Amino acid sequence: MNISLVLRIISYLLIIISGFMLIPAGIALYCGEKNAFIGFIIAVGISSVNFIFMHFLFRGKGRENLSIKEGFLFVSLSWVLASFIGALPFYVSGSMMSMADAYFETMSGFTTTGASILTDIEALPLSILFWRSMTHWLGGMGIVVLTVAVLPLLGVGGLQLINAEAPGPTVDKLTPRITETAKILWFIYTGLTIAETLLLMVGGMDLFDALTHTFGTLATGGFSPKNTSVGYFNSGFVDCVITVFMVLAGINFTLHFRFMTGNYNHLLRDSEFKSYIAIFAAATLLISWDIYGRYYSTITDSLRYAGFQAATILTTTGYATTDYEKWPAFSQTILFILMFVGGCSGSTGGGIKVIRLVTLLKQGINEMKYLVHPRGVFTLKINGNPVKKDIVYSISGFFFLYILMLLVTTAVVATSECDVVTSFTASLATVGNIGPGLGLVGPTKNYAFFPDYVKWFFGFAMLAGRLELYTVLILFTKAFWKK
Amino acid sequence: MNISLVLRIISYLLIIISGFMLIPAGIALYCGEKNAFIGFIIAVGISSVNFIFMHFLFRGKGRENLSIKEGFLFVSLSWVLASFIGALPFYVSGSMMSMADAYFETMSGFTTTGASILTDIEALPLSILFWRSMTHWLGGMGIVVLTVAVLPLLGVGGLQLINAEAPGPTVDKLTPRITETAKILWFIYTGLTIAETLLLMVGGMDLFDALTHTFGTLATGGFSPKNTSVGYFNSGFVDCVITVFMVLAGINFTLHFRFMTGNYNHLLRDSEFKSYIAIFAAATLLISWDIYGRYYSTITDSLRYAGFQAATILTTTGYATTDYEKWPAFSQTILFILMFVGGCSGSTGGGIKVIRLVTLLKQGINEMKYLVHPRGVFTLKINGNPVKKDIVYSISGFFFLYILMLLVTTAVVATSECDVVTSFTASLATVGNIGPGLGLVGPTKNYAFFPDYVKWFFGFAMLAGRLELYTVLILFTKAFWKK
Repeated sequence: MNISLVLRIISYLLIIISGFMLIPAGIALYCGEKNAFIGFIIAVGISSVNFIFMHFLFRGKGRENLSIKEGFLFVSLSWVLASFIGALPFYVSGSMMSMADAYFETMSGFTTTGASILTDIEALPLSILFWRSMTHWLGGMGIVVLTVAVLPLLGVGGLQLINAEAPGPTVDKLTPRITETAKILWFIYTGLTIAETLLLMVGGMDLFDALTHTFGTLATGGFSPKNTSVGYFNSGFVDCVITVFMVLAGINFTLHFRFMTGNYNHLLRDSEFKSYIAIFAAATLLISWDIYGRYYSTITDSLRYAGFQAATILTTTGYATTDYEKWPAFSQTILFILMFVGGCSGSTGGGIKVIRLVTLLKQGINEMKYLVHPRGVFTLKINGNPVKKDIVYSISGFFFLYILMLLVTTAVVATSECDVVTSFTASLATVGNIGPGLGLVGPTKNYAFFPDYVKWFFGFAMLAGRLELYTVLILFTKAFWKK
Repeated sequence: MNISLVLRIISYLLIIISGFMLIPAGIALYCGEKNAFIGFIIAVGISSVNFIFMHFLFRGKGRENLSIKEGFLFVSLSWVLASFIGALPFYVSGSMMSMADAYFETMSGFTTTGASILTDIEALPLSILFWRSMTHWLGGMGIVVLTVAVLPLLGVGGLQLINAEAPGPTVDKLTPRITETAKILWFIYTGLTIAETLLLMVGGMDLFDALTHTFGTLATGGFSPKNTSVGYFNSGFVDCVITVFMVLAGINFTLHFRFMTGNYNHLLRDSEFKSYIAIFAAATLLISWDIYGRYYSTITDSLRYAGFQAATILTTTGYATTDYEKWPAFSQTILFILMFVGGCSGSTGGGIKVIRLVTLLKQGINEMKYLVHPRGVFTLKINGNPVKKDIVYSISGFFFLYILMLLVTTAVVATSECDVVTSFTASLATVGNIGPGLGLVGPTKNYAFFPDYVKWFFGFAMLAGRLELYTVLILFTKAFWKK
C-alpha cells in the first residue's frame, strides 16, 4: 500500500476544490465578509502548501497508477480530507461553533446529503452560504464520475450493471476511459446547471438564489440558503422547475448522454428508468389522492406539493416546500417508504437505488419459479440482457449491509436519547443521503441538537452511504490491510 | 392441480384440531359457559361433517401423495381453513364482535403471533381463553414440523441449511422421514410443555394459568389470559422460568434433540445457536445498562426486566412484564432492532431468523474480500460446511421479499390513518409474528381499533411471515397456476 501516492493524488483533488473556493472568496471580498474571507484564504493556503509539499517531495517517485486497494483508500480519504478542508471556512468564519458541526455540514454537502446543523441559515454570510451550496455541486460531480466510470470497474455493489452502458471509448485501459467518460458527464452536468439556473431566474430568483438552488438540485443535495427552503419562494413555477430537475438529476447520467445523442429508444428500454418514473408517478398520485380536499383545496396544488415532496425524497434531495409532518399519516408513510428507494444508479441520487431493487425483485420472483419447477432454468434479465450471478450476489450483499448499516446507525443515534422514529429516519436520511427525516429531524428541523459524537458518526454514515457502502466498509476488514 | 386431494388432506387436519377443541368444550361444560359450548360444538360439527363428506366422496380416488404445487397450496390453505374453524367458537360465543376480529385472533394464535384485538381479556369465558392459548400450542407444533421436516425438502427460503440436521431416518422417501421426524419433535415439544407447566405451578400459578402461559411460551406466541400479561403475576421466579423457556423455544428443535441424545458438542459448534445467544445476551446487557438506576434501582431487577423483554421480542413471543414504551429511547431502539431478527430456524420463533442473518453477513464480508482479491476463491461456510450458492440466493431473495412485505404492509396499515411508528412496527410485529410493536400497538395496547380490512390484511401478513413468505407468495405467481 503506497499511502504517499494516495495522498499525492488527493492533493491534486484538494487544489482543484480550493480553486473553486476562490469564487466564494471573491464574494466574501466583494461583500466585505472579512471573517469568511480569512476562512477561505486559510483553506486555500493549506491546500496549496500541501500540494506543493506533496508535488515536490514525491515527484517522480514510483508509479503513477493506483492499485485496487489504493483506489478504495483514495476514494474514501478524498471525501474525508475534502470535508476537513471544506469545513475550515465554516469554522474559521465563526459561522459554525465547533469543528464537529463544520465537518458534519461539509460532509453533508460533499455527499449531497443536505442534512444541516444550522438553525438560522439566513443569518450566515452570503459567501459561506454559496460555498455551502457549492460543496453539493462539487460532490455531485464527483459522485457521477465515480459511480459511472470508477466503481463499476472495481466491481462495487453490482454497479457493473451500468458499466457496459457508460459513455466514452470502450478501451481496456482504465485512465483514458475514465477521462473521456468524465468529460462527457461534466459537460452534461454543466449544461443542466446552466439550464436550471436560467429557468429559476425566469421564475424570479436572483442569480445567487438561482445558482445555489441549482447546485442543491442537480447534486440531489438539498441545502438551501433560505430558512424555509424552496417554500420561501412560494411559486408554482419554481416548484415545477425544481421538481423536474430533481427527477432529471436522479436519472442515470449515461441515459442523459444517450438522449442527447438522439438515442430515445434507449430510455424506453431501460428497466431502471421506467421503474424510477413509475415509482415517482405512483407516489405522487397516492399522496395527491390523500391530501386533496384535506390539506389542499385544488387538484393542481395537491399535485404540485405531492410531486415536489415525492421527488425530493425519492431522489434523496431533501428540499421542502411544506412541512410534510403535518400531512395525513398515509402520505407520510409513502414518503417513509420512498426513503428506502433512492435514485437511479449513475445519478447524483443516493439510497439503495432503483436498479438494485429491480434486480432483487426479479430474483425473488425467480426463486419462486424455482420452487415450482426445481429443475427449470430461469435467467434473470435486465434490459433484455442476462445478469451474471456474481452481480446478483454483490447486490444481495449490498442490500443486507445497507439494512444492517441502517440499524447500527439507529442504535448509535438512539444513545443520544432521541425517540425511535427520529433515530430510524435520521439513519435513513443520512445513510441514504436524503437529509430530512421524520420527528426531530423533520423537514422544518435540523441536526443541531445531536451531541458531537453522533454528528461525527453521521459523517461516517453519510460517507458510507454515498460511496455504496463497500468502498468505505472494506477499509475495516482484515483482508484489506493484509499484505 | 388436484384441489380435492388437498382439501381431503386438510379435512384430516381439521378433524385433529376439532379433537383438541373437545378439551375447551369440556371446560365450557364444566364451567357452565353455554354460548362458548355451543360455539365449540358447531366448530367440531362442521369439521366432522366436512371430514365424513371428504372421506367418503373422494375415498380411494387417485394417488395419496401431494405434488410440490399441491404441497404449497396445502400448507397455506391449512392455516387459513384452520383459522376459520378455530374462529367459530370466538364468534359464536359472542366473545368477539365480528368475524374479522375472530379470524384475526385465531390466525394470530395459529401463526403464534400473539397480536390481539381484545381490550378486556379477563372478561372472556375460561374455555374461550383456554382455546385461544391452545391455538398457539397447536400452531407451534405445526410450524416446528413444517420448518424442520417439510419446507427444507421443498427448498423454501434457504431452510435446506437445517435439512441435513433434522432428526429421524435419512431416507429418500418423503413420508416416512416426515412421520419419524414429527414424532421426535412432538415428543420434545410435549416434554418441554410438561416441564414448564410444572415449574410455573411451583411458582404459584394454578393449572389453568400455568398451561395457558406454557402454550404461549413454547409456541413463542404471547397470548395471556391476563390483561396485564405475565406482569400480572409480578414474580421474579415466574419471569425467569418464562424467559428461559422463551429462549429455549426460539432454539432449533433439532438442537434440543441432539442435546437430549447427549450430543453437547453440537450446540457449541452451531453458528446459529451461538449468534442467537450472543444477540440475546448483548441486548439484555445493553438494555440493563440503560434502565439501571433510571427505571429500576437494583441490578437484579434491571436484568430481570431487560432479559424478559429482550427474550420476548427476539423470540417473537410478545409477552410483557412492563410497558417498555416508558423505557428510555435507547432501550426501545434495541427492542426495535430485535424485531428484525427473530428466533432460530426450526424453532417456533418467527422473524427473519438468525441463520439467514448469519449467512447474509458472511456473504457481505465475502463480497468485500472479492473486491480486494477479484480472482480469489472465498467459500461461505456455516458450521464448517460450505453453503451452496443456490441456498445463499434463496436466502437473499427471502431477505428482500421480507423487507418488501414489511413496507407493503406498512402502506396498507397507514391507509387507516395511524402514524408511521404504529404502521411500521405493527407491520414488523405481524410479518415477524411478534405481536406487540410500538405506538398504538405497544405492549399494553391492542389491535382492536383497526378497521376490518386492515385486520384481514394482517391475517394475510401473519400467515405470509409464518410460512417463510415464499410458501404463501408463490400462490400469487403466474408460474404456480400455469399447467
